[in-house]
Amino acid sequence: MDKINVAEKLSRFADHWNPRVIAELNGQQVKLVKLSGPFVWHKHDHEDELFFVLKGVLTMELRDRSEQIGPGELIVIPRGVEHRPVAEAEVEVMLFEPASTLNTGDAVGDGRTRTVLERL
Amino acid sequence: MDKINVAEKLSRFADHWNPRVIAELNGQQVKLVKLSGPFVWHKHDHEDELFFVLKGVLTMELRDRSEQIGPGELIVIPRGVEHRPVAEAEVEVMLFEPASTLNTGDAVGDGRTRTVLERL
Repeated sequence: MDKINVAEKLSRFADHWNPRVIAELNGQQVKLVKLSGPFVWHKHDHEDELFFVLKGVLTMELRDRSEQIGPGELIVIPRGVEHRPVAEAEVEVMLFEPASTLNTGDAVGDGRTRTVLERL
Repeated sequence: MDKINVAEKLSRFADHWNPRVIAELNGQQVKLVKLSGPFVWHKHDHEDELFFVLKGVLTMELRDRSEQIGPGELIVIPRGVEHRPVAEAEVEVMLFEPASTLNTGDAVGDGRTRTVLERL
């Protein structure tokens, strides 16, 4: 039950599209991830997903539009909704989602699927 | 599925110990709350609770110690653990917790219990 310093956790890794788990509660996980470039189109059939931007500007592409999400802003992607995160420059994000959530959702052939996440 | 600006939501209220709901996902809620002064000792028998400090320094008193939690830091209070948030100066906090979580937990006689939360 120690406190967690988010910046300190972020300083411990530099790679992209590789979420780390920093906290767990109620079957949910809090993750940190650094993004760079475009990700893959995907959806999560059974999980809603929250992106809270800490640094940079995240473009969240949806099939009918896109949202620009800056520091201090968040978006919830409901289950079943196709989305593609794109980071023109590096973006740091806090994720809040069920422990079962796979980063690439249904796009498991992407090569960036992470089935086992490091805990920081 | 619009993005949510946390600072803009915080600007919409000024009272203390009255959480507002800004997002819902997977049966959980994201809430914002402003704290000032000491709260009441309480616990949540069935819910873990996450406090993410946005502004100010939160003192989280536990029965055996206390933690000072500053901006960019978070703490998870597991279910069943007695705690008392204390804010010597005003503190702004983002909460992640199940939709069922009552702010005063088992201390429902406190007078600050909020059973219906405003959604911003």
